[in-house]
Parts: sequence; structure tokens; C-alpha cells
Amino acid sequence: MTRQELVQQVHDKRSFLCVGLDTDLTKIPAHLQSHPDAIFEFNKQIIDATKDLCISYKINTAFYEAMGLEGWEAMERTAAYIPATHLKIADAKRGDIGNTSSQYAKAFFEQMNFDAITVAPYMGEDSVRPFLEYPGKWTIVLGLTSNVGSKDFEQLKVNEPGSLDSSKYLYETVLEKISKWGTPENLMFVVGATKATDLESIRKIIPDHFLLVPGVGFQGGSLQDVAKYGLNKDCGLLVNASRAIIYASENEDFAAEARAIAAEYQGEMAQLLSRK
Amino acid sequence: MTRQELVQQVHDKRSFLCVGLDTDLTKIPAHLQSHPDAIFEFNKQIIDATKDLCISYKINTAFYEAMGLEGWEAMERTAAYIPATHLKIADAKRGDIGNTSSQYAKAFFEQMNFDAITVAPYMGEDSVRPFLEYPGKWTIVLGLTSNVGSKDFEQLKVNEPGSLDSSKYLYETVLEKISKWGTPENLMFVVGATKATDLESIRKIIPDHFLLVPGVGFQGGSLQDVAKYGLNKDCGLLVNASRAIIYASENEDFAAEARAIAAEYQGEMAQLLSRK
Repeated sequence: MTRQELVQQVHDKRSFLCVGLDTDLTKIPAHLQSHPDAIFEFNKQIIDATKDLCISYKINTAFYEAMGLEGWEAMERTAAYIPATHLKIADAKRGDIGNTSSQYAKAFFEQMNFDAITVAPYMGEDSVRPFLEYPGKWTIVLGLTSNVGSKDFEQLKVNEPGSLDSSKYLYETVLEKISKWGTPENLMFVVGATKATDLESIRKIIPDHFLLVPGVGFQGGSLQDVAKYGLNKDCGLLVNASRAIIYASENEDFAAEARAIAAEYQGEMAQLLSRK
Repeated sequence: MTRQELVQQVHDKRSFLCVGLDTDLTKIPAHLQSHPDAIFEFNKQIIDATKDLCISYKINTAFYEAMGLEGWEAMERTAAYIPATHLKIADAKRGDIGNTSSQYAKAFFEQMNFDAITVAPYMGEDSVRPFLEYPGKWTIVLGLTSNVGSKDFEQLKVNEPGSLDSSKYLYETVLEKISKWGTPENLMFVVGATKATDLESIRKIIPDHFLLVPGVGFQGGSLQDVAKYGLNKDCGLLVNASRAIIYASENEDFAAEARAIAAEYQGEMAQLLSRK
């Protein structure tokens, strides 16, 4: 999916919502738990109920891997079911030496035809490049994440070689360096919503890139703040909500309730977009 | 597997060799490529031919994911085939927010009964803890990796909050901090062999932990140097070789040739252990 196609989706739907499919067999409604194909069936109903309100779906690979072979199969089938109009993200946090990252790229971009994958930056350039080399695909690198542990390393101050300036955080250096390895046409960054004011300084480093923003909803971030500091001329935001939407109800009405919550997000997003 | 059991294996076999199963359908011998169960059959023959010479097998998950559902199944079956005497490592480089890392831990420690998993440190404590919480299992965190990209972030100088000292590399801070989250009984670190002299300073930070050392063989590291700077009183090293062993021959004799190379490593390791 090109950036132009993605931006068109934002305009058409007045939305920058990504629905996170962190589907956990122990959390889906009781009436589905005995379904022979429970995970796919749950995802299918969520997708059918929300697809006109969101522009992207994000599959959290961990939840599928935890179910073994059946889980992997449910992931493949879910990925295939997501409409081609929607940015299909594998939230996989992969990254390894070059020849291994190439295999991960093959797994997600070729085998399952995802449009995008999340990638961890720790191992540096040759661990990220193999993902960037796929035409028409997106690499979404971890910048500043929304969890408590982001203070342990991401928010350490670093010195660039040859520089005496130690005023930058590691995550800022990550954004700066990696933004040069790709373009706003094939590269995004994960930026957590629990630190929305940090978005202001982040936008100075990467004004044009799309940001994938988790942490709105259950993790406590504010959509207003994210929009205030994060929106750019092409929107430039993908705001993800997972549990707040997919587990909106434990009952048979789960898909309708998921739709209701997604509609609240979309409504708020439409207002924020029109104000911009 | 306990540390005591692992150390016993080192003593019994006079070896600290880990064989890396980076199995790629395009690289296995031609006569196996049309086998209906090629990946598992290749791995089985490699394991049968090398198991008395090594103490561990490491499955690189990327190579299996790249083959889709069949690949995941071959990984599950290979993991089940590795003898219980050997430390069974999932080289998966996972790591995410706490509730997601818990799912990855479940996938590898419960579903596939791996003894150990490699984990990326970028997202900090709550991304690593869920792995450490499994009794009898090992978490192997990336410290200093063997690839060129390790200079991009791992080898940046960092400042700890409240400290004016910027003499530490990020990877050193990673080793220092994370070594406090676990113990030498449940935590190891990945340290690349291409920088064996760095092992001397690394051993000052973590004298007791086992280190998983990739990069010997194809990536150019020297076993002599690794042993000189890395061995501790309990051995404390797991040296991995993947391609150098499993692709030692492209012909029907591949398993015998893999054994021959593994025997060279083991012979050298026995000498290094006896000198210590």
C-alpha cells in the first residue's frame, strides 16, 4: 500500500484508527470459545463490524504464536481476510542480523502479504534494511514505546561519536538515524501515546513520517493530546486501540459493542481532522 | 534445565558447542529438497550426527516462519526431537509490552517446551520480566551482537540519569541493568564473537553469567579469543555455529560432514577447557 493510498483512506473515512487484533482465546466471549475455529471467527466478526470505521488492522503475533500451530493458521487466515483497502500490520517486533531479518521479511511480506511489520532497532542498520528493501511495504520501527520499561534504555541520554552533546535520548537518536535509512513513503515509527507531549519534540525530528501510536485506551493515553502534537499535513497518525475495542463486551453482542467503541474513536478523529 | 545440569553437560562432553539450526529449504542438499518433510528430516539427521558433540541446539525462528504454516510445524517437531539433555534455545529475538511478552513466553516455554529464548532489550524491564518468571527456563538477552549494525545503537555512549559519567556503552548499561533483573541461574546474554577482546570488559560486568556467542565460523570470530576472555569457572560459554556446521556439505554426506566440523569444534573446546 502506498502512502497516497493510505492518506486517501484517512480522507474517505475521516479516521486514522487502527484496530489491534490481540485476540486471546481466554478473553473472547464464552459462546465462541467452543467454536472449532474460534479465533478466526472472532476476528472475522470484529473486522466485519469495524472495517468502515478504521483504516488499518494490526495483528499482534504473540497472541497467535501462544496457541501454537492452530494459532499460526488463524493468523494466516485473519491476514488473508483483512480487506486490501486496509493497511495490514504485523505487530511482530522482529529484528536480527541481515540474513535472518530477510527471512522475517519473507514470512510477513511474502507468505502472509502484510503491508507493514513492526521492527526493533537495537541491532542497527543491517537488521532493519532487509524490511525496507521490499517495494510497496512498510517498516515500522520502535521509537518511544508506551510501557513503563521505556525509561530503562529508550530514555537514556546518549552521546553521538565525536560529539560532546549529550542532550539527546536514545529514542531520539533512533528516530534521527533510522529516518535516513528509509523515507516517509516506506518507514513509520512506533510512538507511545502515554507521553503525548513528547510528540512535539518528536515531530521536530520526523515531521513527515506516519507514527503508529499504541497506548490510547487501556494504556491511558489521550487522543486529543496525540492529535494536538502528532497530526501533520497528511494526517501522519495511525492510532491503535486493541483491548478497548475488541473486548468491549464479553457477550454475544461483542461485535456490535466493538463497533460502538470504534465509532466513538472515529467520531472524535473526524472532529480532530476537521479542526486541523 | 538448571545451570548445574548445563555445566554437567559441559564436563561430560568436554564441549560448549551450540549447533544452530538455521535451516533454509534452498540451502539443504538437493536429494532432500523434494522430501515431503524436508526441513524436519534435515534437522533430524543433523541432530543425530552431532548430539554427542554439542550441549545445545538453537532454532532460528525466522527460517521456519519464512516457510509459513509448514515451517512452524517443522519447528515444533524439531523442538520436540531435540534430546532433553540438550539446552533447547529458541533464537526468536522477541520482546514487547508485558502482556504481550507473556504470550511469547507461553508460545516458546509452554507450547514448544524450549529451555531458553533470546530477547531484545530495547523496551526495558516489563518486556523482559515475563520470560524470567518461568521457573526452570532461561532468558537470553541481546547484549553486544556480532553484526555491523551493532555500532549504530549498542555501541553509543550513554549517561545514566544523575551521572556525569558517559564512559559506558549502551550494551554495557544493558548488561549491568538486566543482570539485576535475573540471576546467573536463569539469565544469559548474547555477546558476539567478532569482538572477542570486548569480552574482557564484559566479564568485569557479568563474571558469572553464561554467554551465548554467535559469530564463530562464517561471521569470522576466533574460538581461541572467545575462550581466552570469556571462559569462567563454570565454563560460562555457549558458542554457536550454524552455517559452518549444517551446510558443511551440499551432498548426501551432509550429516557426516556436519559431524566432522562439529568434532573439530569439540576437539578445540576440549583443549581450551583443559587448559583453563
